[in-house]
Amino acid sequence: MMSLAPLGDQVRAYIQPASIEHNLGWLQRHLGQFGTRPAPKIWAVIKADAYGHSTAAVLTGLAQADGIAVLTLEQAYVCRFLGWHKPILVMDALLTANELRDPVLSPLHLTVNNPYQLTELEKGPAPSPPYVWLRYRGSLNHAGFEHTEYGAAHTRLQRLLQAGHLAGLGHLQHYANADDPAQLHLERQLFSQVFAPRVGPRCTENSASLLLDPGFASDTDWVRSGIMLYGISPLSGSNGPSLGLEPAMTLEAPLLAVQHLRAGQAIGYGNSFQAKHAMRVGLIRCGYADGYPRNIAQNCPVLVNNRPSRIVGRVSMDTITVDLNAHPEASAGTMVTLWGTKQLPIELIAQSAATIPAQLCSGLTARVPRVSTGSGRCGDRLEPRRPPHEG
Amino acid sequence: MMSLAPLGDQVRAYIQPASIEHNLGWLQRHLGQFGTRPAPKIWAVIKADAYGHSTAAVLTGLAQADGIAVLTLEQAYVCRFLGWHKPILVMDALLTANELRDPVLSPLHLTVNNPYQLTELEKGPAPSPPYVWLRYRGSLNHAGFEHTEYGAAHTRLQRLLQAGHLAGLGHLQHYANADDPAQLHLERQLFSQVFAPRVGPRCTENSASLLLDPGFASDTDWVRSGIMLYGISPLSGSNGPSLGLEPAMTLEAPLLAVQHLRAGQAIGYGNSFQAKHAMRVGLIRCGYADGYPRNIAQNCPVLVNNRPSRIVGRVSMDTITVDLNAHPEASAGTMVTLWGTKQLPIELIAQSAATIPAQLCSGLTARVPRVSTGSGRCGDRLEPRRPPHEG
Repeated sequence: MMSLAPLGDQVRAYIQPASIEHNLGWLQRHLGQFGTRPAPKIWAVIKADAYGHSTAAVLTGLAQADGIAVLTLEQAYVCRFLGWHKPILVMDALLTANELRDPVLSPLHLTVNNPYQLTELEKGPAPSPPYVWLRYRGSLNHAGFEHTEYGAAHTRLQRLLQAGHLAGLGHLQHYANADDPAQLHLERQLFSQVFAPRVGPRCTENSASLLLDPGFASDTDWVRSGIMLYGISPLSGSNGPSLGLEPAMTLEAPLLAVQHLRAGQAIGYGNSFQAKHAMRVGLIRCGYADGYPRNIAQNCPVLVNNRPSRIVGRVSMDTITVDLNAHPEASAGTMVTLWGTKQLPIELIAQSAATIPAQLCSGLTARVPRVSTGSGRCGDRLEPRRPPHEG
Repeated sequence: MMSLAPLGDQVRAYIQPASIEHNLGWLQRHLGQFGTRPAPKIWAVIKADAYGHSTAAVLTGLAQADGIAVLTLEQAYVCRFLGWHKPILVMDALLTANELRDPVLSPLHLTVNNPYQLTELEKGPAPSPPYVWLRYRGSLNHAGFEHTEYGAAHTRLQRLLQAGHLAGLGHLQHYANADDPAQLHLERQLFSQVFAPRVGPRCTENSASLLLDPGFASDTDWVRSGIMLYGISPLSGSNGPSLGLEPAMTLEAPLLAVQHLRAGQAIGYGNSFQAKHAMRVGLIRCGYADGYPRNIAQNCPVLVNNRPSRIVGRVSMDTITVDLNAHPEASAGTMVTLWGTKQLPIELIAQSAATIPAQLCSGLTARVPRVSTGSGRCGDRLEPRRPPHEG
């Protein structure tokens, strides 16, 4: 998938499609435990280039998903180009009447968030009519129709459905507080006042609500799941591996060099870390320009050769320095894991940086190669090309 | 430079090569004020894809620089491919003897950070010998030679210089505390003990030290400047425009939609913002998956149509919401500036996010198109392709 040379000693994000596949299966079994109806279908949410995992790398792990959900028309085209033939839900693009007629996009599902999109849909039938989900504004208030406007919009879409201009028409909500049981209950109640008088399937649940209250999903037709498919918990205070999920992205870099500090010597910008006694420090070629967070707490965890260690000194644009005192065997070339294993889930780094895991994986920059592993596509892990050295 | 369609309504980083050129001229005049010797030459530091500004976009503004400094061999090749014929300083790659012989890279300058690089240099002369800068480890302790090792390494390089295998040999330091006058003085003193007994030019100063104590640079041969060339102050408590610099990156997105909130209605995940009275809120297609910081303080500033406003509600993966109450004229398509003008320097956003400006610009992800403006290359600013609408 990538040639060896340009990777050099830099950080890489290894993407495991097999883990995506495992997490999807986990969710399917989870949903299958509830209700007597067939379990709801699953939209695998891959917006933001699959939460930073890279669309191309994750699609091979999503073969069993019922559809994929993207934000933009551009990503929908990329997925069709990559060979995705199942439904695509475009969640927040304003497709023109012309674009709606493009057969390449079919089977196409569409959220209708605003009157503009209604008008475009009314401009005449497409050869392959789209399936439309009318979005309720709810308390997120980012997009969609308020309860006072919802009925009129639904009536216009019903008319299109009856004329055969739509493949289907459903109700969609996106929660603002899916991780708070009381608020979630309130959001669902408000929505039920809107959809209950009207026919049609529903798509409301996301990763957090599917964990907090999975029984509710058995009443819906489609659910959406993003973060969980990447092996990451949507709920603070837990992590993917503890739920039985597998991290799909492992961020790793080989040690570039090893430095020896004497007692009292400092390291890094601002010299904020000072060695209390003689110590070995490893440098890796990763920094905040890769998207690694700069504002981590002291002693942020890493793994050196799969065993626990910590970051010392400040994260700079291109360099992170790690404590090697408990790792006498570590030398240039030894692998350092920054996040994304059972032992070091990304949730721990998010906690250290006072943010959420989605910010970390989707915030990786273009400088980090996404290297797909497994699925017979990429073969074994790539090795750094440089001979070891110590500085 | 880019076609219109794929840009859609998303956020864009407009890069102004003319501002880079202005800031370089500012620095040249600044350096020209000191000492009787000719002013030192300037390495324009463009590592991390020009601090996120994109190498291709900034090179056209750097025509008057004496050389450019990159981190990796790969970026050096990109710059040669883009037509950069002046010297390139590769700051932290371990070039093999073979790579050192590649005439495409010439004129090549190289920092020697470790014994491995010495060994490669000793493997025989290159047709176009590189210019070598021996790096002192200083108190940053990321790379380079300690004072106990520096002499031996210098002797080995001197031998290569005398044999005609090097184009030149200099002394290089990178400060750990360039923004702290007392610490900076100490770091310089330590380095002077190392280089003073030895001949050769020096390259020590960076943006922060050039502002704090510009007179010192007149004793050196080359200086390095990165952040300042992008119009950003290297010193906390000041900003680029207040120094006379011009921000080279403006991060902007058109309003995607306008929402109306009634008194008491909330917006965004966690519903952390509640409207005290009826208000209009604008949505823009930018979020933490673009690299905009998620952990900003309340009321983080933005410009709506070049007039001050603020962010309300939480920054999500794809959406930022801004207060439009003082902007009755704002509608879908109205431009919102997120950072990078005289009125809204990036330093203000960095302060709100408790980080440094370099983290923000170099942390932008691949989802943000860098659009070069001016220099006759890109013409006028691109306009969003969608007709306005209100949600």
